[in-house]
Amino acid sequence: MTGKGRVLLVGAGPGDPGRLTVRAERALRSADLVLYDALVDPRVLALAERAQRFYVGKRAGRESLAQSTIEGLMIRAARRGRTVVRLKAGDPFVLGRGGEEALACEAAGIPVEVIPGVTSAVAGPAALGIPVTHRGVSPGFLVLSAVPARHYETVLGALPPGVITVVLLMALGAREEIASFLLRAGWPADLPAAIVLGATTEREWSWTGSLDALGGAELPDDLGDLPGLVVLGPVVSLAGAVSRAMGREEEARWPRTQRR
Amino acid sequence: MTGKGRVLLVGAGPGDPGRLTVRAERALRSADLVLYDALVDPRVLALAERAQRFYVGKRAGRESLAQSTIEGLMIRAARRGRTVVRLKAGDPFVLGRGGEEALACEAAGIPVEVIPGVTSAVAGPAALGIPVTHRGVSPGFLVLSAVPARHYETVLGALPPGVITVVLLMALGAREEIASFLLRAGWPADLPAAIVLGATTEREWSWTGSLDALGGAELPDDLGDLPGLVVLGPVVSLAGAVSRAMGREEEARWPRTQRR
Repeated sequence: MTGKGRVLLVGAGPGDPGRLTVRAERALRSADLVLYDALVDPRVLALAERAQRFYVGKRAGRESLAQSTIEGLMIRAARRGRTVVRLKAGDPFVLGRGGEEALACEAAGIPVEVIPGVTSAVAGPAALGIPVTHRGVSPGFLVLSAVPARHYETVLGALPPGVITVVLLMALGAREEIASFLLRAGWPADLPAAIVLGATTEREWSWTGSLDALGGAELPDDLGDLPGLVVLGPVVSLAGAVSRAMGREEEARWPRTQRR
Repeated sequence: MTGKGRVLLVGAGPGDPGRLTVRAERALRSADLVLYDALVDPRVLALAERAQRFYVGKRAGRESLAQSTIEGLMIRAARRGRTVVRLKAGDPFVLGRGGEEALACEAAGIPVEVIPGVTSAVAGPAALGIPVTHRGVSPGFLVLSAVPARHYETVLGALPPGVITVVLLMALGAREEIASFLLRAGWPADLPAAIVLGATTEREWSWTGSLDALGGAELPDDLGDLPGLVVLGPVVSLAGAVSRAMGREEEARWPRTQRR
């Protein structure tokens, strides 16, 4: 309300509005303009009651606005004194192009605030009862875009299998190629693997199995546009016990899980 | 209020109460008992107005409660019908022993809800203007406990240097050993490196430099008990430009940053 425009790069978290941060919720309520991505939950978007809302999403295989167009919209609105929320699923700095947009604002002299969100890379596995780290099982985790293939070839090709948890984003379309690559690289066929789609949303769907079955895992046709991720590592085998404890929680909506 | 006890494993985020999720804030307000760690910000803890609060923290070099004692406290209180919040800095499944506590509850037949938090592994670098991923610079990131040393020796020893961002937790005490190990393993001396302590708290402190200077980076004496992390990778060099944009934001408290 200072009359001075600005851009807030806001992480919306994995879906459920309860996973928004207090600061992100406040940002949405104060916004004049919201530029949002395809993976943002409509219940989160609805919090920006007084804002104009524009869809600027990019999804595989569809027409979308160029990144420079999005940055131009953001900067022009801020120059006109508006509070612009650039709303991203998960966290703005986890494969969300938040860094590029912050740099574009910096070049244009527009003030930016970065409001981190709960990243789906951790909350997605957690929704299935998978802790990305676990004492004696995994002392860390790796989050990686699976597109293009050279990313996982370079990084996973070098990594000793099963030592840390691997979370692959943008990996669903390439799950067969990824599984073949890792099996050829000597990763064990029985390495526990999981897929989660739409974590914490009403349409959450999951699959657990092993690396050699990952390539053949069938996704439901009607859920193909949901954000999804692949989890690889021994921590996946904890999902059963942890989720049983979570299933006893009355408030928890335990997902429709398909096990092979 | 059902008369049935339960355990909520809650991530408090990196510090600032604005980084709490809506669901975590609600959990704190509803708690009968809060068992909290050393790294939880007092402003977050204060939200649990009607709860008994017990410190069960573990920090390097100090006496602390055994993990089994903490789990016993949690389970006994839940059995007496109480809503127990187990409050952890960051996210409960990112090196927070949340998995172990969920399994202990499962074995005891106590219902559990997991409430993810904003992980310091992403929000800590973000506070300095460092995006953990950035198009054309880093397609992913790795989060790893630096204790014991074999963790980073196994994983980082195999990883091609500079391809993805590395975030090391519990790494401050071993920063000299880590830097020496990586330099011996052929990592470039000029690889950008950063340290952040107490990200998003009032005492936030940071350092940026390069891998060969990491070992000699001097931490302020009076901040030695703050949670801290080490970031390695080319994304660290974006901190200057992104933070300039963030510095223009009136509401942002830009940290006291020391650059070598």
